[in-house]
Amino acid sequence: MKPVSFLALGALALCLTGPASAEPAAADDAALLATAKQLTEAAKTDEVGLQFVEDLTTEVGQRLAGSPAEQRARDWAVSELKSLGFTNIRVDSFEIPYWARKHEHLTVLGPHTQDMVIAALGGSRPTPEGGLEAEVVRFGTLADLQAATDTDVAGKIVFIDEPMYKTQDGSGYGLAVQKRGNCHTVAAAKGAVACLIRSVGTDHHRQPHAGAQSDLTAPDGHHVPMGELPAAALSPPDADQLTRLLARGPVTVNLDIAVDTAESAPSGNVIAEIEGGAHKDEIVLLGCHLDSWDLGTGAIDDAAGCGIAVGAAKLIDALPGTPDRTIRVVLFGSEEPGLFGGDAYTRQHAEEAGKHVLAAESDFGADRIWKFQTRFGEGAMDYAKAMQSVLVPLGVVPGDNEAHGSSDIGGLRDAGVPVVTPYQDGRDYFDYHHTPDDTFDKIDPEAFRQNVAVYAAFAYLAAESGWDFRKGAGSGE
Amino acid sequence: MKPVSFLALGALALCLTGPASAEPAAADDAALLATAKQLTEAAKTDEVGLQFVEDLTTEVGQRLAGSPAEQRARDWAVSELKSLGFTNIRVDSFEIPYWARKHEHLTVLGPHTQDMVIAALGGSRPTPEGGLEAEVVRFGTLADLQAATDTDVAGKIVFIDEPMYKTQDGSGYGLAVQKRGNCHTVAAAKGAVACLIRSVGTDHHRQPHAGAQSDLTAPDGHHVPMGELPAAALSPPDADQLTRLLARGPVTVNLDIAVDTAESAPSGNVIAEIEGGAHKDEIVLLGCHLDSWDLGTGAIDDAAGCGIAVGAAKLIDALPGTPDRTIRVVLFGSEEPGLFGGDAYTRQHAEEAGKHVLAAESDFGADRIWKFQTRFGEGAMDYAKAMQSVLVPLGVVPGDNEAHGSSDIGGLRDAGVPVVTPYQDGRDYFDYHHTPDDTFDKIDPEAFRQNVAVYAAFAYLAAESGWDFRKGAGSGE
Repeated sequence: MKPVSFLALGALALCLTGPASAEPAAADDAALLATAKQLTEAAKTDEVGLQFVEDLTTEVGQRLAGSPAEQRARDWAVSELKSLGFTNIRVDSFEIPYWARKHEHLTVLGPHTQDMVIAALGGSRPTPEGGLEAEVVRFGTLADLQAATDTDVAGKIVFIDEPMYKTQDGSGYGLAVQKRGNCHTVAAAKGAVACLIRSVGTDHHRQPHAGAQSDLTAPDGHHVPMGELPAAALSPPDADQLTRLLARGPVTVNLDIAVDTAESAPSGNVIAEIEGGAHKDEIVLLGCHLDSWDLGTGAIDDAAGCGIAVGAAKLIDALPGTPDRTIRVVLFGSEEPGLFGGDAYTRQHAEEAGKHVLAAESDFGADRIWKFQTRFGEGAMDYAKAMQSVLVPLGVVPGDNEAHGSSDIGGLRDAGVPVVTPYQDGRDYFDYHHTPDDTFDKIDPEAFRQNVAVYAAFAYLAAESGWDFRKGAGSGE
Repeated sequence: MKPVSFLALGALALCLTGPASAEPAAADDAALLATAKQLTEAAKTDEVGLQFVEDLTTEVGQRLAGSPAEQRARDWAVSELKSLGFTNIRVDSFEIPYWARKHEHLTVLGPHTQDMVIAALGGSRPTPEGGLEAEVVRFGTLADLQAATDTDVAGKIVFIDEPMYKTQDGSGYGLAVQKRGNCHTVAAAKGAVACLIRSVGTDHHRQPHAGAQSDLTAPDGHHVPMGELPAAALSPPDADQLTRLLARGPVTVNLDIAVDTAESAPSGNVIAEIEGGAHKDEIVLLGCHLDSWDLGTGAIDDAAGCGIAVGAAKLIDALPGTPDRTIRVVLFGSEEPGLFGGDAYTRQHAEEAGKHVLAAESDFGADRIWKFQTRFGEGAMDYAKAMQSVLVPLGVVPGDNEAHGSSDIGGLRDAGVPVVTPYQDGRDYFDYHHTPDDTFDKIDPEAFRQNVAVYAAFAYLAAESGWDFRKGAGSGE
């Protein structure tokens, strides 16, 4: 896309209709876009966002949902956001069902005895103490397991070896994660005694990828800490090895998993604002999630997202004056076990949903943003184009108007809040995702700052322009 | 180097002097070189060598020196070599001091409490049960530790953070490994209570690199299972993290290491031959080591080397007739804790050292061979050139005459046995070396087969030519 000139955009804005108070003059738009561009320049040397990531991952480390470590992260974040000059800092508390690993071991028995590297999946049941001994039955895909008879599976440990493919937009994940979510219910219904899966990941390192199972609910629908079976992910080389062993004959293993669970444990969303001016009741929400899986230090998932949101908000705060609307940074809690923070926010802030003019969440690492999607009303597409015009020079191609938002802002999106998705390049993200390897060194500072630049630019335009991103929504125009 | 024509080489050989019986005619040399070239072609589709690696790493897995797993590997190898049609298969037994990890944990105490990923170093002493609590003192290099005063170090846990640099010839290892070998003696002399080192490796994955310490000897010089202190390697990201924590203030940790040791445990060298013809008492030795560290499955270190030697020997065996000299494949035991297999071989075969016409050991992974060094007598340089002429088309540049050989054949080299070093590209080798990630998938089949081609070519020339690689050795000519 050829960048639109500031004056042309100003002219476009002049032609748009909407609430008179919220429509800026053409000259203002040109100035807005120029300032947004200045912010992208300033981001190139920004230290605030990256320092936030370094400090969170170094001083707190892993932040398992509902754990004392997540509580330390909230305390740390409140203190840090205060010292950075944010206002209206508070924690919205909520409760979640708690699950944590205590240990997991997988040993191949028989002539080729050896230990394998696994991680229990979120919501795994424990095995009996000392482990569970059973034969392994392999399926190439979840669909193959679904097609199997009870006789194929009963009394055995199911192993789903389905691979995951690298894609720039991460769409390989949606496909591959089904086996993680659904093995326990499908296998249990056929009489299996446990689930093993090839890690949901795209690397070849001997590190398992943790992650939650789906449908951890009681018959009445309320969330529970555990699913239906003991379940674990093998590292990719161990999945290869198990497949090679099975090619040589029947394989019996001992699977030993111990877990710690509670029906209810404390979590919370940490909220901080750059308070707006004339329209401070109108909210531009920049989100991320504060919790992480326990194996790494949650650097790319999702300290990076928090650093991007905080860095962008502080760049805007450093401009003279006050943004017209409020920029609200939300560090969601307990995203990993099942989007609990996003659900709590949607519930707790239902009354002000209409005051959210725009929402975005960064939860896909910090590689370069390559595409910027929107989900605006049909009458607001010129605002999308205006934002995109500032982002193209950062290497960001304009996307369509089908933005999904991200995990924790799904509830807001469903409530009609306009969202944008600044799409990080996801080709390498699932090499590290949910593994011990999700550590600070995996973040490239230059790419990270490009993320801060993108977030600062669109958030500034949303906060300062008065643009109505709902314009024409549902009107069919 | 421009390849030398076969006829020119034949002419060269005609001019050389030496034992009349061992000197081939010119026409024979041209035929030899043509056959060597055919072997390199045959290697391109060879399955034997790679299958050997797959089977060893799958059916046995890790093969810690002196352990029951190494015994299983010897049994497996004897059976496998028999079924491959090798002759004179036997195990030369010897004893080693035994060390194995039972567990290792490192926990940062204090406000930034967190667990770190470590591996106890070979020969680490155990800590008291429940661990050892002490402050960490960091040194950028081993030299910095050597320069420190006792007051800087006494009562503390020393942390040497020295990095390792990637090089094609692996020379970065020689520099970086010093800290692993020597921390315990240097730190103990200054009153430290334990050693931590940044892993000796070039990757950024959260996997520690195991490895032996140096000088595990009693005052009388005999080998003992343990060094002077508890000692462990941090994964590279954990070394980064510890450095960042130390930048924030004093760091106290709990280091908990438990080990299993024995003054003496069984090990052995597995030997198999393609028996020669007229000069079957003359030996061309192709070596590798059968043992591995315990964290991975020892694929690149050193199942690959064994597969290369076995694959090359079998390619030669598949030629019509019998090679003139014997090709002896030696799978050395217990290389990792201190070259025990090589030492035993040198001792046990001292009387036939003079019958070894050439020796090589592959112990540097299976990336493409890029250089071919020799260590021949000065009168035998035309043989080096002849070998190199066959290897250039495989992408192998001729090296100098300063070949080191490799770990286990150092004793033979010192006893005057001519050696060659077909140098694998080592740039990525230390990403995986001694980590859990040393698994079969790390071997590129095409590069592996190039290794088999190189070994088959020079071993065939050595076995069939009658060339005397000692010619002119020590003569000063």
